[in-house]
Amino acid sequence: MPLTRQDLIARDAKDPLSSFRDEFALPEGIIYLDGNSLGAMPKAVQTRIAAVMTQEWGQDLITSWNKNGWFDLPQALGAKIARLIGAQGDEVLVTDSTGINLYKLLAMALDLRKKRKIILMEDSNFPTDTYIAQGLIKHINRDHEIRFAKREDMAAQITADVAVVALTQVHYKTGEIFDMEDITRRAHEAGALVCWDLCHSAGALPVDLSTAKADFAVGCGYKYLNGGPGAPAFLYVAKRHQGGATQPLTGWWSHAEPFAFERDYRPAQGLTQMLSGTQPILSMAALECGLDIMLRTDQQAIRQKSMALGALFLSLMETKCADHGFTLASPKNAEDRASQIAYTHPHGYAIMQALIDQGVIGDFRAPDILRFGFTPLYMRYGDIWDAVQIIKTVMDKALWQDPRFAARSQVT
Amino acid sequence: MPLTRQDLIARDAKDPLSSFRDEFALPEGIIYLDGNSLGAMPKAVQTRIAAVMTQEWGQDLITSWNKNGWFDLPQALGAKIARLIGAQGDEVLVTDSTGINLYKLLAMALDLRKKRKIILMEDSNFPTDTYIAQGLIKHINRDHEIRFAKREDMAAQITADVAVVALTQVHYKTGEIFDMEDITRRAHEAGALVCWDLCHSAGALPVDLSTAKADFAVGCGYKYLNGGPGAPAFLYVAKRHQGGATQPLTGWWSHAEPFAFERDYRPAQGLTQMLSGTQPILSMAALECGLDIMLRTDQQAIRQKSMALGALFLSLMETKCADHGFTLASPKNAEDRASQIAYTHPHGYAIMQALIDQGVIGDFRAPDILRFGFTPLYMRYGDIWDAVQIIKTVMDKALWQDPRFAARSQVT
Repeated sequence: MPLTRQDLIARDAKDPLSSFRDEFALPEGIIYLDGNSLGAMPKAVQTRIAAVMTQEWGQDLITSWNKNGWFDLPQALGAKIARLIGAQGDEVLVTDSTGINLYKLLAMALDLRKKRKIILMEDSNFPTDTYIAQGLIKHINRDHEIRFAKREDMAAQITADVAVVALTQVHYKTGEIFDMEDITRRAHEAGALVCWDLCHSAGALPVDLSTAKADFAVGCGYKYLNGGPGAPAFLYVAKRHQGGATQPLTGWWSHAEPFAFERDYRPAQGLTQMLSGTQPILSMAALECGLDIMLRTDQQAIRQKSMALGALFLSLMETKCADHGFTLASPKNAEDRASQIAYTHPHGYAIMQALIDQGVIGDFRAPDILRFGFTPLYMRYGDIWDAVQIIKTVMDKALWQDPRFAARSQVT
Repeated sequence: MPLTRQDLIARDAKDPLSSFRDEFALPEGIIYLDGNSLGAMPKAVQTRIAAVMTQEWGQDLITSWNKNGWFDLPQALGAKIARLIGAQGDEVLVTDSTGINLYKLLAMALDLRKKRKIILMEDSNFPTDTYIAQGLIKHINRDHEIRFAKREDMAAQITADVAVVALTQVHYKTGEIFDMEDITRRAHEAGALVCWDLCHSAGALPVDLSTAKADFAVGCGYKYLNGGPGAPAFLYVAKRHQGGATQPLTGWWSHAEPFAFERDYRPAQGLTQMLSGTQPILSMAALECGLDIMLRTDQQAIRQKSMALGALFLSLMETKCADHGFTLASPKNAEDRASQIAYTHPHGYAIMQALIDQGVIGDFRAPDILRFGFTPLYMRYGDIWDAVQIIKTVMDKALWQDPRFAARSQVT
């Protein structure tokens, strides 16, 4: 008997994660399949930020740096993220943006592998990582170069001249997952270091940096961690590398004694050397609300539901939209992909605009990718049914041909 | 006839800036002389941030990047700050932290003056600027060096081997003002570039980068601009240098077409190349509230009141606290200092703790500086009277000798 909407509503009623949806503010009448780009707002943010504004900033003013723990937020929030990515509490800091953190870590990695001149990256990686590496090489290490490899050739390209392998664990378009443990082991066997970008991993699937013996990692706070628009990013430095090299953005927060106001730089011990300057406290506080929800969940349960949502979407798309020209760009096997599914379509841009107009928010990635994210904390099985129904309508009625959807504009 | 508290209350009643105080949330019973470290909260922040949370993030979600102008905030807020510092609207961006922005600008400056190997700095500058320059040199330009000069020798030290003069216009401890126009002119005559740190200038006194023909500048949003704790910082690049060199932190926001997802870096035109990654939107929105208040004021009126508040404080301190061992560390002449006054005192730390305990919040800067900031938007002449009265009490009764105030801890 074919699956019905009722079956899925019943499945939602039994979902062990279903109660988390109430903790997020979500717009009425919208199916939000873009939590992989900007996570929804935890309702707790409103109360928390109101308190930070009214009491901490408004009343306690400068004393909040000590009294309300502002000084310690990079470490405190880092320790919370550490629990989600298999790191120790003193191996993760929340600070700056993903790209700036990657710059710091790549500079350290090149210092730790001075004789090696290659940064190995994936040719189709989210390009900011590549751009940051290119900026670093141009300005710092002019005799280094980036070797671009295809995903399937990656292992073979880890040769003895590679200083650092810098990869995004989950591909930003397809959601395909690199085998972190395998790549890290191969890199170490070749004497290279590994830096993992966890932007599409953290909060989407269990990550275990310690077991993988990863050297470095970065990631953002505004996707599956629901930290808010432009939430500060995080960085991870394995204990064994802390103090082994210094990062170059040596602002006063990375000094051994910032309040001694010494003229010359002396690096702080351990992870604190990775800081640079003062962090945006309102945005840090919002991120903490997202982390606190995530820490009450079981990452395995999130993974199970994520795979189930994705499999459901895939199977409904096959049933209902088979003849509409969508080509799956993500791995077919749920084990091989994280919490998103992408299709290519020659009219991808216009179709996504029509979907958004009809209340299904996914995103478009040039040149032709439609991307749908499945966030287990606030997405229901019934939503997937409704979303595919709307995709079918948009295609059956060719709503995407509306001239309003022809022009390209920016969508993150 | 000697000045009385009543005289000052009367003066407040006639103060053309007096109505601005109502726009800030200030704690009852506290005299806040630390707005030079963390500005008070504009009440408008509460409404604005509530809207960003509830509507923009909560309801509009990812569409806010276009719909609510999130993409354009670095430029839009930059254009507002430009009006306060004598720059053109497309010469200022709000992004990242002061130190990270300084790193970008110094790297550019060294690229623009390739044959020169000296960064000229003040030996007693706020040290994060020095630390950033030291990090840059260590990692990027190993054959460069920093020449440290005393304030009074600065002009003479601008020799033909200087690539860039990097100075803080207003000294963080003493409030002494560099003659921006004179130093810039001398630097240009010697073929050097100039980068001004405006952390203690912007919003405290009129700044005119265009008239001074400054090359670069940075500054923070959380002091006199009242942008909130850790508010994003700003950077200025004179039109003539835009595109002349690229900054090294080349994240996707600095790419010519970030949403084309090209593999290789291509710099954006103009000022946009100075961006790196995604900015913290909640903190950006709070900063905009502070800027909007500042833009409704007359910078000359702010300067007049700032000098009057400082002169009053100085004269009351001379009258009431002459025998208590305070040594003025700031210029005596109001024209020579910005909006703060500092004293050295051998028991500076304990005295400041006692003052805070008594409701007068200033700050302490190691090793022996007591610093008092005068923020004309929310400080009253009567407050200055009361503050000095409390300083006198703390000293007359030796309240600072309380053992509670003996231990050193961090105060920004």
